[in-house]
Amino acid sequence: MKKVGVAILGLGVVGSGTYKILTEHREFYKKTHNIDVTVENVLELRKERALELGINESAIASSMAEICSNPDVDIVIEVMGGVEPAKSFVLAALNAGKSVVTSNKELFCKYSHELEKAAKKNNCGLFYEASCVGGVPVIRALLDNLQGNKILSMMGIINGTTNYILTKMSDCGASYEEVLKEAQKLGYAEADPTADVEGYDAAYKLSILSSLSFHTKIPYTEIYREGITGVSALDISYGKKLGYTIKLLAIGKNGTNGIEVRVHPAFIKSEHPLASVSDSYNAVFVTGDSVQDVMLYGRGAGALPTGSAIVGDVIYCATHPNHSYSTFKNTEKADAATKFVTNFESAYYLRLAVKDKAGVLAKVSAILSKNGINVAQIIQPNEKIDGAVPLIIVTHLTRENSVNKAVADINANDSIAKVETVIRVVSD
Amino acid sequence: MKKVGVAILGLGVVGSGTYKILTEHREFYKKTHNIDVTVENVLELRKERALELGINESAIASSMAEICSNPDVDIVIEVMGGVEPAKSFVLAALNAGKSVVTSNKELFCKYSHELEKAAKKNNCGLFYEASCVGGVPVIRALLDNLQGNKILSMMGIINGTTNYILTKMSDCGASYEEVLKEAQKLGYAEADPTADVEGYDAAYKLSILSSLSFHTKIPYTEIYREGITGVSALDISYGKKLGYTIKLLAIGKNGTNGIEVRVHPAFIKSEHPLASVSDSYNAVFVTGDSVQDVMLYGRGAGALPTGSAIVGDVIYCATHPNHSYSTFKNTEKADAATKFVTNFESAYYLRLAVKDKAGVLAKVSAILSKNGINVAQIIQPNEKIDGAVPLIIVTHLTRENSVNKAVADINANDSIAKVETVIRVVSD
Repeated sequence: MKKVGVAILGLGVVGSGTYKILTEHREFYKKTHNIDVTVENVLELRKERALELGINESAIASSMAEICSNPDVDIVIEVMGGVEPAKSFVLAALNAGKSVVTSNKELFCKYSHELEKAAKKNNCGLFYEASCVGGVPVIRALLDNLQGNKILSMMGIINGTTNYILTKMSDCGASYEEVLKEAQKLGYAEADPTADVEGYDAAYKLSILSSLSFHTKIPYTEIYREGITGVSALDISYGKKLGYTIKLLAIGKNGTNGIEVRVHPAFIKSEHPLASVSDSYNAVFVTGDSVQDVMLYGRGAGALPTGSAIVGDVIYCATHPNHSYSTFKNTEKADAATKFVTNFESAYYLRLAVKDKAGVLAKVSAILSKNGINVAQIIQPNEKIDGAVPLIIVTHLTRENSVNKAVADINANDSIAKVETVIRVVSD
Repeated sequence: MKKVGVAILGLGVVGSGTYKILTEHREFYKKTHNIDVTVENVLELRKERALELGINESAIASSMAEICSNPDVDIVIEVMGGVEPAKSFVLAALNAGKSVVTSNKELFCKYSHELEKAAKKNNCGLFYEASCVGGVPVIRALLDNLQGNKILSMMGIINGTTNYILTKMSDCGASYEEVLKEAQKLGYAEADPTADVEGYDAAYKLSILSSLSFHTKIPYTEIYREGITGVSALDISYGKKLGYTIKLLAIGKNGTNGIEVRVHPAFIKSEHPLASVSDSYNAVFVTGDSVQDVMLYGRGAGALPTGSAIVGDVIYCATHPNHSYSTFKNTEKADAATKFVTNFESAYYLRLAVKDKAGVLAKVSAILSKNGINVAQIIQPNEKIDGAVPLIIVTHLTRENSVNKAVADINANDSIAKVETVIRVVSD
């Protein structure tokens, strides 16, 4: 039986969940994998947390150096989050010859090139399945299952907080502010929700997933990012009438013009498999040139689902002594040859407030047409909002720049109409 | 650059698809994985198939022995299907020191113990991701992602032909016979559809998936199997009214009383993620004690999706020189300690034809009650079928034996009612 000692850095939600899984399954892993996994050290400033979990005081390390010099620690699990001190600790572990398993999307997205370099130098494993989409097995699927494909596109609901908020807004017709407050009360959103609701968390994950998919580093700074704070119950309700569900989507495409990476709210057809991914569930929908469509669905966050991904990596690391690394030249920046497309192709939902008089529709139509935009669908409900008539337009596929120009043209002519909302529509 | 020579046994649908993927992506794999994969040999009696694909005549082997003695062949891809000669060929390849990638569910389900033994003896890789659910990455997810979990249950739509037939029956209200004919015309069902429609194919796959999930060999002979030939458009339509969708489900459960493995048509709530898996799409819904629910969805068959799984295994094999094997004692039979439950717990849909007179419902209810069965839902539509009144009953959770006994009791009293259909209902 192989002895495997681990250290856990951080006993927050995920760290505690990981500790519980490892200790409760110790006998199970002896039987299934012939390994005896023990938690030899934890690093946690709030000592009482460790004691509450039943961890021996002697296992509570007083410094990272103590863990690095502990010969019984083979694998270091980093579940602290944030860049520092996590980065220094991970590098210290690797340089001490320990393999590392991390759930830290921000760290991995920003510094995977440095971490991988240190791992290779020291012949250590570096695993990060838990960094993206919790218990959903998407990293290894891209590395070890779909790697024979040219990945054409990926589309994901990869942030639990925003999906919870948008689902509740859709179900109850409540406003963003109301639902956010409720989510904070229930612990689904943090006191400062910026990282989630402004799409940073999703952008970090998309950076990791699209780098693996497209075989070149996709820095998160190349990702177009728009959060959900501007999404209104009114637009969700009009969207529903048109057969759409609103989601915060992370989209990566690899087309003939280059790579397109973006995180933003989007309408998606209600019969699309992603549309029924509700509440805190997450899913990634990948299209490859051979496999066609694959969707991976599950809990994108939480102590035990994320702990499941971490423990999966720990067992893999313990049972596969020869380490392999990411399948692209893991540099700080994208390859020089990589082109990024910012003038996205998409369909668009526009909600306008228009004057209730003859000729307005003709003028709006003329502006759209002048910008090369074809209208797929139009609704003018028999109602008024703040004295103006709402006019909802869904376009055929067009380009971001064309829409921006058309919106500016309409708004410049604000005696007739004003564009209140622009939401991208996934048309395929 | 590492040179990787492969041989393909069988150029049917999947073999041809695999050949195309490998040859069209040769330059791509050089860049992404630093490997040069070439097809050194094919084994195919119909020589013209090979020539049509553009394969050099010199690469068409005249025997398995020729492939075994070709030093340029590192990996043998077996996509012939069936037990023999596939089994002899795979064993010959392993004994000649070649790693094997197979899509053959029948062979792997029946003889994985023999194949794995030969692979271990010769220190060769043995890969079978393509044996279950085509391009959906389920095998590796169970082995390398979810292996930290005690898997509590799995539920899958893992046969494309039957899912296509049931979807069409549901959409159009057509009969099984009509849709089968259409499916055969379109190539979605074989001339002899037995393996698919009687659930053998699904049972082979469930044997493999549940063995991996539950860490003991689950011989396919232990799997309860019922096909879709008895499913009627009438029951599908009543099911819809009750909020259910019909699917051929493969179910594995690991509970306190033992392991339950079964393949049969079942009603599932229309809002369940599996209910919207339509046409030839497949999905596996796995519940683990840590990860909770995970669903993996995609194309369960077809040249390129299955080819994607095969090529994924080929690349993995070429880039991971240390081989690992299944995580259970891969024996011919289940461990002596393994208990199989046959008196399943389930909810049930019963359609009865009853006499249109007073007291019948009371008598039926009394029989159900006597057998300890609680009724969850009852519908008596205001219509007659062949002179009798249809009575639809959905039970709460009960046991297979209780339902069988109740059905026998009702039918024994056939002056009042006859049970026309029994369909299990997935209630959670």
